[in-house]
Amino acid sequence: MYNFKRLAKFKKIERKRLYEILEKAKEGDKESKIFDIFMMILISLNVLAVILETVNSLVTKYGKVFLYFEFISVIIFSVEYILRIWVCVEDDKYKKEKNKFKARIKFILSPLSIIDLLAILPFYLPVLIPFDLRIMRAVRLFRLIRLLKVGRYSKAVTTFYKIIKKKREELLISLFIVIVLLIITSSLMYYIENGAQPEAFSSIPAAMWWGIATLTTVGYGDIYPITALGKFLGAIISILGIGLFALPTGILASAFTEEIAIEKEKKMKCPYCGKDIDLD
Amino acid sequence: MYNFKRLAKFKKIERKRLYEILEKAKEGDKESKIFDIFMMILISLNVLAVILETVNSLVTKYGKVFLYFEFISVIIFSVEYILRIWVCVEDDKYKKEKNKFKARIKFILSPLSIIDLLAILPFYLPVLIPFDLRIMRAVRLFRLIRLLKVGRYSKAVTTFYKIIKKKREELLISLFIVIVLLIITSSLMYYIENGAQPEAFSSIPAAMWWGIATLTTVGYGDIYPITALGKFLGAIISILGIGLFALPTGILASAFTEEIAIEKEKKMKCPYCGKDIDLD
Amino acid sequence: MYNFKRLAKFKKIERKRLYEILEKAKEGDKESKIFDIFMMILISLNVLAVILETVNSLVTKYGKVFLYFEFISVIIFSVEYILRIWVCVEDDKYKKEKNKFKARIKFILSPLSIIDLLAILPFYLPVLIPFDLRIMRAVRLFRLIRLLKVGRYSKAVTTFYKIIKKKREELLISLFIVIVLLIITSSLMYYIENGAQPEAFSSIPAAMWWGIATLTTVGYGDIYPITALGKFLGAIISILGIGLFALPTGILASAFTEEIAIEKEKKMKCPYCGKDIDLD
Amino acid sequence: MYNFKRLAKFKKIERKRLYEILEKAKEGDKESKIFDIFMMILISLNVLAVILETVNSLVTKYGKVFLYFEFISVIIFSVEYILRIWVCVEDDKYKKEKNKFKARIKFILSPLSIIDLLAILPFYLPVLIPFDLRIMRAVRLFRLIRLLKVGRYSKAVTTFYKIIKKKREELLISLFIVIVLLIITSSLMYYIENGAQPEAFSSIPAAMWWGIATLTTVGYGDIYPITALGKFLGAIISILGIGLFALPTGILASAFTEEIAIEKEKKMKCPYCGKDIDLD
Repeated sequence: MYNFKRLAKFKKIERKRLYEILEKAKEGDKESKIFDIFMMILISLNVLAVILETVNSLVTKYGKVFLYFEFISVIIFSVEYILRIWVCVEDDKYKKEKNKFKARIKFILSPLSIIDLLAILPFYLPVLIPFDLRIMRAVRLFRLIRLLKVGRYSKAVTTFYKIIKKKREELLISLFIVIVLLIITSSLMYYIENGAQPEAFSSIPAAMWWGIATLTTVGYGDIYPITALGKFLGAIISILGIGLFALPTGILASAFTEEIAIEKEKKMKCPYCGKDIDLD
Repeated sequence: MYNFKRLAKFKKIERKRLYEILEKAKEGDKESKIFDIFMMILISLNVLAVILETVNSLVTKYGKVFLYFEFISVIIFSVEYILRIWVCVEDDKYKKEKNKFKARIKFILSPLSIIDLLAILPFYLPVLIPFDLRIMRAVRLFRLIRLLKVGRYSKAVTTFYKIIKKKREELLISLFIVIVLLIITSSLMYYIENGAQPEAFSSIPAAMWWGIATLTTVGYGDIYPITALGKFLGAIISILGIGLFALPTGILASAFTEEIAIEKEKKMKCPYCGKDIDLD
Repeated sequence: MYNFKRLAKFKKIERKRLYEILEKAKEGDKESKIFDIFMMILISLNVLAVILETVNSLVTKYGKVFLYFEFISVIIFSVEYILRIWVCVEDDKYKKEKNKFKARIKFILSPLSIIDLLAILPFYLPVLIPFDLRIMRAVRLFRLIRLLKVGRYSKAVTTFYKIIKKKREELLISLFIVIVLLIITSSLMYYIENGAQPEAFSSIPAAMWWGIATLTTVGYGDIYPITALGKFLGAIISILGIGLFALPTGILASAFTEEIAIEKEKKMKCPYCGKDIDLD
Repeated sequence: MYNFKRLAKFKKIERKRLYEILEKAKEGDKESKIFDIFMMILISLNVLAVILETVNSLVTKYGKVFLYFEFISVIIFSVEYILRIWVCVEDDKYKKEKNKFKARIKFILSPLSIIDLLAILPFYLPVLIPFDLRIMRAVRLFRLIRLLKVGRYSKAVTTFYKIIKKKREELLISLFIVIVLLIITSSLMYYIENGAQPEAFSSIPAAMWWGIATLTTVGYGDIYPITALGKFLGAIISILGIGLFALPTGILASAFTEEIAIEKEKKMKCPYCGKDIDLD
């Protein structure tokens, strides 16, 4: 309700300018840059708050601080959400649509808008529907979806998304190899160790827990072969298999350095004003 | 027996067409594509079933489901096996052979056919020969060989096989280095720690179990040096040796990205119809 | 006080030559080379002494040796510090400054000089201000800052610094991805395991300790999922996440080999005298 | 003694030919190739025997087999050693030396000859000097030096040696970074955890054991931080430090693939006879 009053104030400001500020800042647009940084910090603090709220000793001490911070954050996010719906018609994507209501509905159903909505819902929902405690906790953790709001401002997320898309084929092939390897080694180990450790290696899925811990080299130490044959097989699997499990790692790392190199090439400095120019 | 009836039905269908469907799908052949996907899913479900059958609670609950699924799967695999033998004469490899019986024997003895046979044998064998329980379990696990049937449809397996073949030399050299390193470090650690931990470091093979866990960085924590000298040596070994144990990992990862890059170059899109053309 | 007497002796020696000796040795300057190596060894022994002083049995046995060594080292470092202030006016950076006192103040406030001062302060401070025991121990460990004095002579540190600077962007992006991944996986695991292990997975920060140990593949084994769902999620996280956590590793390793290759190109051998020429 | 009789037999055979056989086989020299393979197998079996001899149950069962095998092996190695001294004058390196006795002394003092001598000494020494049991065990393990005899025939060892030599600089720099990092992190962790775990983190060297286990990602789980601050620091160290500890790994892996690529280029097949030609 109070949101609408605030919205009214903004109506005087040019819609076009507000759109620029809300969007990712262009080179040299200071106001937009400040807004972006403010939102990044607010989102980070929100995520930190959700994390720290699970520590009991902190909640008993600073419970009210968390409450107030959540309240203020949701107000800001709600205003941002409504403003974005208002200004979305300035976007090139929705400009062509003559019916402004239709354009806004389209915008509301876009992935980034849905994330914006989901980020504030956990606050409004419990008011509308009474939840039991267990679901309540899930709803609270669900606020972590605010982390995804960062995607709008962050280059890291877009770079990462590009890499995954580009190397989809390699990653899928190596994932397939990893799964086949895991099934074979875990089944063998289950067959060998089941007799000596019927508890730990009770089934193939249980042996897979060992397989994952070994082939990823995590090695918690909660499960490992104890028979001579099991240790022998475990040793061979470790030497041969770890290389295969590290395939995705190698693919991602090389794709990453590649991608950054490409993006750097796309940039140049203007010889007159010295500013960065995007050749993308 | 019933298989032959089914086979009879198919006799009316052109053998050539059936061969195309059974083989890996060519660009645009929808029926063959559907068959490939169906087989991939069936094989995956079979592997999953073998894995889940080792979980006692699931067997007591859904024992009959597993039984029926195994029954149906073996029928399908058996029919597929017989059909493949029937249509194999359409293959370029066996076409030249005038004696069709000889061609089929040749086909039956090819690696992929033997895998197909081994994949269904664990079902038929216990009917023919009575097994004791322990062997019975081994026979059941042996059904996992169905996983290898995927090799016919999967690019991952062929890519992986190519890489291993290409980098054979590098992999063997690094394996040799790894084994030499393992023997030296484990022997040293055995000599140092045997006095303080006569149980854990009872022999060089026992010390090798520590060596593997350390040099692969798995580190279960079931065995580690406790003397000052042992820890000092263990620290030096860790820093210097892990790099060597990661050699196969590095070789495989770089070979993998290389291989995929080569295969991508071999493909081009037809400028007229837009379909992928294989330059291989 | 006695330092000044010593200083007086040196006044007869040419200041220019002393500057050359104190600075990193140029090709062929034997005296300067000897001084560099002497300082490297002295610094290394100092660091070793600080480390070994924390071993009680060694202190009770060789307490006096540590004391004398510290005393002698501080004298040498102090003399070096004062001499550096005296000769700094020979440096190109401070030569232009006509007011020699101003130049020396500038030099004293440069990062390397501050490190030099901090390296000797822990010795003089307790004389001036009486400390309680706990702070005293912190002051003693602080002597490890002498390690940074090595930066003046070491190529490793400058190479490392260059790499970090060059790959800043890649490292920050991958760090961001790592943190986001850590928050998401730890929160999920907290939600799943909290019921079964209210002690170990008491909060999201506690679950993050598991997340770090798993995604870095350290796997101490003090905390791990025990529920079926937790293990299943843990397995998926391990396979998918470890690749992302290894991104900085891959970036650093490739940047490192790149950087060394560039530096090697910058060097050439003179075709007449055979000495190395720096093209930097 | 009996060696000399055997030696006498060989005197009839041309010394030149014997030299060729003893040396690494050239392309197409079948006799030399067979000798190389025989020696490789004999060395491998010897190493295996030393390893298995530390397993008590095997010694009590097959003690005599080990004894006879050692006896026969030493005879063969001794004959080989004496023959090598006899034929060494055929080597290009020692051919120029007119005084054949001097040439042979030079050969005896070369690294590979010393290894050959050390490989048989543990057998002859106890006959000459009576040892106590503890030294006896060291002498027995010392037979593992026979592993180094493989270096004469193995390409892996020479490739490995080349890489280490080529990348000496990179490896030393990264080793330096690793040590500095280890000292800083371990000292910090010692300061933080010493209060809560005076046993485990009793001194900086003890904390270094934690540092090694963490930064190499081995993570045995025998020592880890338990305080909140310690865990926080441990988490940051893990994320940032592991990348640095993996530097040698990355350097070695890339150097390895590089080196093999170079060596492959050096080889070509003769277009007439199809044999490999070494361009080295």
